Amino acid sequence: MKKKVIVGQSGGPTAVINASLYGVVREALDREEMVGGVYGMINGIEGFLDGQMMDMKPLEASGELNLIRTTPGSYLGSCRYKLPESLEDPLYPKLFEKLAEYEIGYFFYIGGNDSMDTVSKLSRYAQKTGSDVRFIGIPKTIDNDLVLTDHTPGYGSAAKYVASTVREIGIDASVYDNKKSVTIVEIMGRHAGWLTAASVLARKYRGDNPVLIYLPETAFDPERFLTDVKDALEETANLVVCISEGINDGNGTFICESAGDIGVDTFGHKMLTGSGKYLENLVKERLGVKVRSIELNVNQRCSSSMLSGADLDEASAAGAYGVRAALAGETGRMVAFRRCPGEEYGLDYVTEDVNQICNQEKTVPLSWITKGGSDIGDEFIQYALPLIQGEVKVPSENGLPLFAYRR
Amino acid sequence: MKKKVIVGQSGGPTAVINASLYGVVREALDREEMVGGVYGMINGIEGFLDGQMMDMKPLEASGELNLIRTTPGSYLGSCRYKLPESLEDPLYPKLFEKLAEYEIGYFFYIGGNDSMDTVSKLSRYAQKTGSDVRFIGIPKTIDNDLVLTDHTPGYGSAAKYVASTVREIGIDASVYDNKKSVTIVEIMGRHAGWLTAASVLARKYRGDNPVLIYLPETAFDPERFLTDVKDALEETANLVVCISEGINDGNGTFICESAGDIGVDTFGHKMLTGSGKYLENLVKERLGVKVRSIELNVNQRCSSSMLSGADLDEASAAGAYGVRAALAGETGRMVAFRRCPGEEYGLDYVTEDVNQICNQEKTVPLSWITKGGSDIGDEFIQYALPLIQGEVKVPSENGLPLFAYRR
Repeated sequence: MKKKVIVGQSGGPTAVINASLYGVVREALDREEMVGGVYGMINGIEGFLDGQMMDMKPLEASGELNLIRTTPGSYLGSCRYKLPESLEDPLYPKLFEKLAEYEIGYFFYIGGNDSMDTVSKLSRYAQKTGSDVRFIGIPKTIDNDLVLTDHTPGYGSAAKYVASTVREIGIDASVYDNKKSVTIVEIMGRHAGWLTAASVLARKYRGDNPVLIYLPETAFDPERFLTDVKDALEETANLVVCISEGINDGNGTFICESAGDIGVDTFGHKMLTGSGKYLENLVKERLGVKVRSIELNVNQRCSSSMLSGADLDEASAAGAYGVRAALAGETGRMVAFRRCPGEEYGLDYVTEDVNQICNQEKTVPLSWITKGGSDIGDEFIQYALPLIQGEVKVPSENGLPLFAYRR
Repeated sequence: MKKKVIVGQSGGPTAVINASLYGVVREALDREEMVGGVYGMINGIEGFLDGQMMDMKPLEASGELNLIRTTPGSYLGSCRYKLPESLEDPLYPKLFEKLAEYEIGYFFYIGGNDSMDTVSKLSRYAQKTGSDVRFIGIPKTIDNDLVLTDHTPGYGSAAKYVASTVREIGIDASVYDNKKSVTIVEIMGRHAGWLTAASVLARKYRGDNPVLIYLPETAFDPERFLTDVKDALEETANLVVCISEGINDGNGTFICESAGDIGVDTFGHKMLTGSGKYLENLVKERLGVKVRSIELNVNQRCSSSMLSGADLDEASAAGAYGVRAALAGETGRMVAFRRCPGEEYGLDYVTEDVNQICNQEKTVPLSWITKGGSDIGDEFIQYALPLIQGEVKVPSENGLPLFAYRR
């Protein structure tokens, strides 16, 4: 009997998590000699437990499957659901009964750290109980913080969005260039500064904005920051500064928490002020210059307007590679990228032990952070540039990007 | 003696203000039988008064002129400078001496209401003193609030950015679709709701997000808003609401001012809370659902990622038409668009009296606002759809959009 494939998406959206879904489904449908059908789980493992699934095959004929490839966000819906730590928990036999009921032999989960934790637990439970269901993780995160892979699908497009958006913000800031001003851009990243580091790519020439860039990897000192800003304003009248949302004092206290006990709204609730807003007020008070802060917000992770061709292709290829690995007998593995040596950019696709990956975090090497934590070095630029290459023409209708959605 | 052309940009940036600059310069260079040279004023009339100008001709050979066409923001820099009300002010003779010194016969100013005020005053002063310098305004504003023209260059691209971004935010919001949530998107527009209205185009199907849309044209009642949100959550678990930054109580008090006296930062300063943030706190307190607010911020006006082909072409054509009008003897006029009757979209280019335009504001017709001020009707959709058509391939280098800049 041919076993079936099931695939799910978990965690936050990215621009290409659906390209990985496309890759899994496309490859599985193409292997009908070995695969008896392809299911998608609605809202990840949480939905699957409730029996929420869909048959992916009909999407092929309707053309929806091709559209899914360039649709941002999670087509199947997502969840943030942590499986019980103890493999003795009654949830596991229940879950494996469901897998058996639907004749599932191959389980693919597209996500970040937490999703790899799910793959780890399920594959260990399978091993423990002698189940032959195979579990493969497909990496996904704009944070680029998964270990044992050169980078993660989703990062390239988010990095391209950040770099081009910051370049445009630099233009916006310099329009009235006869007065000094500071623009603080807050970029996603609680613990890893990969996405904020990508703002360095926005520079059109040496010395261009963003002149200052701060990541969570190094301790952030507000006094040092003020000195940096003051010095930079001597050279650049309209200064753009990029910061990670997660900049902290080096002892785990986020900078935005410094302001947390002050602002109180109409209802007596704390006004949760972001790091950018906090620094905006600090610069206003201490340096007395015109200042504004901009939060890039969710479009960093869900915009298709700056899709990286490289990222899109790699995300799809990662999904397809995962299916081939499972069919070849692998389980408890995550698809990973290994960068080929040499000048020209190229990747080898491999798999790595998911247990070594889950619940770990890869941060930006400290040697890539320069000028006392206020700039990014050339090593990062060499690393990141290939990941944002290639433009993608997203299908459009009536002047707007056309996206797939579940009806 | 052949007179020279001078062109300036004023007010906030748009995605296509440089396309109008391109249009003026391109047409002027092509008319060398009548035009003795083309200057750009750096930072508008304010820079011109300081003698800050550049020769535009060399940009043609270097290829920079073509690049300017798709570069967002003001290539020449901008200003917010109001000429004196009294034409007796000594500034006027000083300014006209400068025009004479540089042998300028044709003056073009690309901007919104305030810029048309400049064109009005200069042309009236010329008339009063018998100067033969001709003054023409080229419209520009994402706000779309200029009278006597069907729409303004800059609006189409900003509307396309808003619609596609809100569509993506809707996807982001619906990823975890098993829990109720509210996402409030704050869009630019202090007095006119044109840009916020464009969020209605984000809907992929009837009833899709954004389900609720509020413009500054109608009085905003927080209690009514809460009822709207509560009702809408019954149908749409992950609700997206779009609001203009300028929503107000109908008596000129902005909603964001309601919170203004509450939040105080570390330095005892008022925390200037936007309308979105204010409503976020209101929903949290009163309805107890998961809620977040997103400010689209400056990229609405300065992003080239969602350039409308129609907007880009019209902006450039408006600049060229202005040059032809001036050479034909017109002055004190603004280039305007008249929509051709009939099903198919088409424009006639005309000029209108700039004195009738400056310091006026065109708002969204009240009959286009539906459901008690919480939705936008089909008339608007018919009006706006042609303005966002056409994709533009922005030149790129190293994976990022390539922009022109003054060296």
